[in-house]
Amino acid sequence: MSVLEKIDIFRQFTDFNDSELEIIMPYFVAKKFKKKTHLLDVGKVSDEVYYLIKGCIRLYCEKDGEELSTYFFTENMFAGSYDSFLSRRPSKVAIETLEECEVLVLTHEAQEKLYDIFPKMNEFIRKAIEQRFVLLHDLFISYLLNSPEERYLMLQKDRPELLQRIPQHQIASFLGITRVSLSRIRNRLAKK
Amino acid sequence: MSVLEKIDIFRQFTDFNDSELEIIMPYFVAKKFKKKTHLLDVGKVSDEVYYLIKGCIRLYCEKDGEELSTYFFTENMFAGSYDSFLSRRPSKVAIETLEECEVLVLTHEAQEKLYDIFPKMNEFIRKAIEQRFVLLHDLFISYLLNSPEERYLMLQKDRPELLQRIPQHQIASFLGITRVSLSRIRNRLAKK
Repeated sequence: MSVLEKIDIFRQFTDFNDSELEIIMPYFVAKKFKKKTHLLDVGKVSDEVYYLIKGCIRLYCEKDGEELSTYFFTENMFAGSYDSFLSRRPSKVAIETLEECEVLVLTHEAQEKLYDIFPKMNEFIRKAIEQRFVLLHDLFISYLLNSPEERYLMLQKDRPELLQRIPQHQIASFLGITRVSLSRIRNRLAKK
Repeated sequence: MSVLEKIDIFRQFTDFNDSELEIIMPYFVAKKFKKKTHLLDVGKVSDEVYYLIKGCIRLYCEKDGEELSTYFFTENMFAGSYDSFLSRRPSKVAIETLEECEVLVLTHEAQEKLYDIFPKMNEFIRKAIEQRFVLLHDLFISYLLNSPEERYLMLQKDRPELLQRIPQHQIASFLGITRVSLSRIRNRLAKK
């Protein structure tokens, strides 16, 4: 991946100039992960967040031996267990790749160093965490107010590519329903 | 309220010195609200957040004509419909005071000006929104993983004063149960 491509990514939130990018880029380490790579266990403190250049990363928690998918990150998103990364408490969610992934890794240590040497990083991370907050709030409110069918329709509208990329049983657990219920919803909508 | 008291509040997240506090304080306007003051309707864009010096503020959404309490803010917290305040979209939650409140109001316009004239504000707001993110994530995960009784026990452990300050029907709606179910939980726990 060329430096120019990385620059585009970091101009998403903040108007870093080229000399500023020279400072921050060494703190983001390019890595590739294979599909189904386990990046974090429930109960461990998260030390890394992943800027997704390519691929898909899933968060999930566990209840009664079942996996509940809580979020799917795709290209141009910061993926991670932010809750644990920020609070330094054991993570309530696990992280795994669903596809082969190309990422830029920012460790907690690197982030803290960046705040020290380059205060403008606060603006960048503020905007990243604000975006993440809004997505989490949308998800929380949709759990409170919407039926699984309504949430399926929202997913279809807002992130249609996910329905193609993610295994059906993980979409179902994200909606809080069984795979059979998901099939029923899809069939019902197909007849409309 | 003296300036010294305000200073304590703003040193919670960031080491502002006295001359920095002189810059930012005029952007935070002290106000008092009576109990049951309605601060925001669902569907309106939120233009204000409230740093709570004294009192209690509730967020709630509406479902089938019922109010569902989604959060209670008390002293030393930034209360508000952050989702709408940040995204500039119509709010999914309403805001009201549950007690007489003393607050410092930061408008969206004042916040944007502060970012321009005083970049260190990014660090302060980053930390405030990170704290808010962690609280929202805790709430979201507890909805997914815990029973109403478990959530009642968490509330009792983490924020015992809320159980005294908040009307029972609002605690019940926050836990996603009826007032009768809440009474049953309390009776069951009292017998243990």
